[in-house]
Amino acid sequence: MANNKMMTNTIEDIIALGKAAKQASRKLARLSTEDKNRVLLNLTELLRSEQEDVLTANRLDYQEAKAEGLDESLLDRLLLTGERLNGTADEVQRVSELPDPVGEVIETATMPNGLITSRRRVPLGVVGSIYEARPNVTVDIFGLCLKSGNACILRGGKETIRSNEALVTLLRKALSDAGVTEDAVQFVDNPDRALVDAMLKMDDYIDLLVPRGGASLVRFVAENAAMPAVTGGIGVCHTYVDRSADLKMAVEIVHNAKVRRPSICNALDTVLIHSEVAAEGLPLIAKVLTASGVELHCDNRTLSILGPDAPVTAIPANEDDWGKEFLSLTAAVRVVDSLDEALEHIETYGSGHSEAIITEDDAAATRFLDEVDAAAVYVNASTQFTDGGQFGLGAEVGISTQKFHARGPMGLKELTSYKWVIVGKGQIRP
Amino acid sequence: MANNKMMTNTIEDIIALGKAAKQASRKLARLSTEDKNRVLLNLTELLRSEQEDVLTANRLDYQEAKAEGLDESLLDRLLLTGERLNGTADEVQRVSELPDPVGEVIETATMPNGLITSRRRVPLGVVGSIYEARPNVTVDIFGLCLKSGNACILRGGKETIRSNEALVTLLRKALSDAGVTEDAVQFVDNPDRALVDAMLKMDDYIDLLVPRGGASLVRFVAENAAMPAVTGGIGVCHTYVDRSADLKMAVEIVHNAKVRRPSICNALDTVLIHSEVAAEGLPLIAKVLTASGVELHCDNRTLSILGPDAPVTAIPANEDDWGKEFLSLTAAVRVVDSLDEALEHIETYGSGHSEAIITEDDAAATRFLDEVDAAAVYVNASTQFTDGGQFGLGAEVGISTQKFHARGPMGLKELTSYKWVIVGKGQIRP
Repeated sequence: MANNKMMTNTIEDIIALGKAAKQASRKLARLSTEDKNRVLLNLTELLRSEQEDVLTANRLDYQEAKAEGLDESLLDRLLLTGERLNGTADEVQRVSELPDPVGEVIETATMPNGLITSRRRVPLGVVGSIYEARPNVTVDIFGLCLKSGNACILRGGKETIRSNEALVTLLRKALSDAGVTEDAVQFVDNPDRALVDAMLKMDDYIDLLVPRGGASLVRFVAENAAMPAVTGGIGVCHTYVDRSADLKMAVEIVHNAKVRRPSICNALDTVLIHSEVAAEGLPLIAKVLTASGVELHCDNRTLSILGPDAPVTAIPANEDDWGKEFLSLTAAVRVVDSLDEALEHIETYGSGHSEAIITEDDAAATRFLDEVDAAAVYVNASTQFTDGGQFGLGAEVGISTQKFHARGPMGLKELTSYKWVIVGKGQIRP
Repeated sequence: MANNKMMTNTIEDIIALGKAAKQASRKLARLSTEDKNRVLLNLTELLRSEQEDVLTANRLDYQEAKAEGLDESLLDRLLLTGERLNGTADEVQRVSELPDPVGEVIETATMPNGLITSRRRVPLGVVGSIYEARPNVTVDIFGLCLKSGNACILRGGKETIRSNEALVTLLRKALSDAGVTEDAVQFVDNPDRALVDAMLKMDDYIDLLVPRGGASLVRFVAENAAMPAVTGGIGVCHTYVDRSADLKMAVEIVHNAKVRRPSICNALDTVLIHSEVAAEGLPLIAKVLTASGVELHCDNRTLSILGPDAPVTAIPANEDDWGKEFLSLTAAVRVVDSLDEALEHIETYGSGHSEAIITEDDAAATRFLDEVDAAAVYVNASTQFTDGGQFGLGAEVGISTQKFHARGPMGLKELTSYKWVIVGKGQIRP
């Protein structure tokens, strides 16, 4: 498998992939829920029973990446194991259990002239994804696209190309065993960047682009794509500890929001704390964060409250620390004198991803929820909950921080559009 | 008024407009329904009672445009009269009566861990509009933006700049009389194209661009805007007369879809008719269309059915006639041998706007509704119904033919996004 020769060599080739995907998307739009679920259950089975080729291909990717000096965290994201493949299989099975969004009647009404109007949910068409490192994205995106009736074009990172190729072989087998066109998935098996540039201009064939990766990839796609692209996955997330906060709750939430998984976009970056509770709250927060290895970048008031002898890792913050997505065991900390000051800080430095207030004061909670302009706003909970699964969507292709089309976690419904269906009995417009 | 000197002279000026709009949008997002309706009712009143300055300005625009040789249909679109202003006032009043979309809870759920999640409707922020000729667009866009909590930046055509300036004076007065910031509306009073180019790059300040005008304007905006833009307003619309059609109904619908208003985007461009009913149906259709001054561009089968001596205006179609948006009293006509052939024709030549089937056969209707990929699909009704008012939205900023965010007529809800609101009691993510 890993020795197959590269097949997508020219821009003509990738345009051919686009045409094939568009063609397939017309069939997928009308595929029954049963057929879609059959593909997903086939895939679940294959991911559990036919792991050998995938693991072999992944071993080659891993060894090459290691030899090239890829860092440990990237190597870990690249690595597949039997257990990880079983986990991916479980996710595909869960997608098969989700309700089919296609065909849902969103709303219907009878007009005064007797016309019956309704909006009916339809797939977007073709979803392209450009992603890095993690080969399980190949399976995730395919599963969500198929269930929502979309074809997909996958362009993974060059460091996982053998793993992705082996996984795509399973995707194709799952499709053909269910009698569904293999063209439902298109795979760009040549890592040439020129092909990515070509893909970004294929708005005749790709209806939505989903970049999955670091900030620079997301920005590059947003700036260069001719078709709509999901902007997101970048979170500068604040937790504001209000003067009325339950401090024990605040400590637990701040710790969870930072430490549970520091490398994901919904992880806490900055703690804001009201000056009235800073003297009591900050030492408690600093202690649990330090115990988990977090380095604190603090404003002067925080430093003076913690004191020079505190058993915590705290250094002075510089201006760059506000508005930084750390993605690591680092957090910025600042004392504010009011809810207004917290709101202003979040407006200035936030990225519109996930923001939380810890408070027992309903009026403060209401203002925070109303006034913070972000995809997800929380009262008394950890921002790490921003996730399609946690929000009841079952799964997600990504998290949008834009306001157009979809905001926050994007699940099956967010991969659809709608059409207006109008049924008349001969009505003409006066 | 019309002699005011131009104010927006430089790119810095237009960026300042953007900043002011963004600033205002934060206040508008939290404006009460009452305050918004007060602005709209003030405006209704002003449009009825203070017409003099607007009509004077419009007369100057009209005379200048006439002197410059603008064609009759454009001159007519440019012209304001007391009656037309009263009509615009009525529309603003209707918008004041529509439900406020902002704050609506779209869906809510309690997660197994007790978190209460909901999606709450919020404004997009700042809507920019670039439009031509018709000065009433100035008022329409403002009214819909204000009611949906959005600030707007208006850039009308240079041929109506005095009229727009006078109208914007009324908009500002309606705002300030209600105690609402006048920055809710920003007006680009310099017709320099360089300022449009700058506007297209202001994605920090403009959340959505709505081009209103011809195909070349829409395409220019879509290709050059850094922010999301509505693609639409271009309709190559088909009406397919099935073999089971009620031919009397077919004649009435085809006539209405073409003739009622031939210059709008939902007007019929091509008639497709099944060969089994062509001999009976085509002469009837050709007769009523000809009687209304429509020129028919026909395929050979249609011409041979109509015969050389038919009292109709029919000439041979050329390849360009299929897929053409005529916007005039011209229609293309073609005979097809099956529903499949009709579907294929529409897929090849349609623009995804409005498509209709005339049939008494439920199976044919179902296939047409399922398989045609367009913003609006009809059974037994005129495509001229594609309109926000006719679909029960109350009003529209435009008609989208894209699948992302909104498809078909865009009303108040389509000018909104949502935020996820999560209320917890100290939940942390395991």
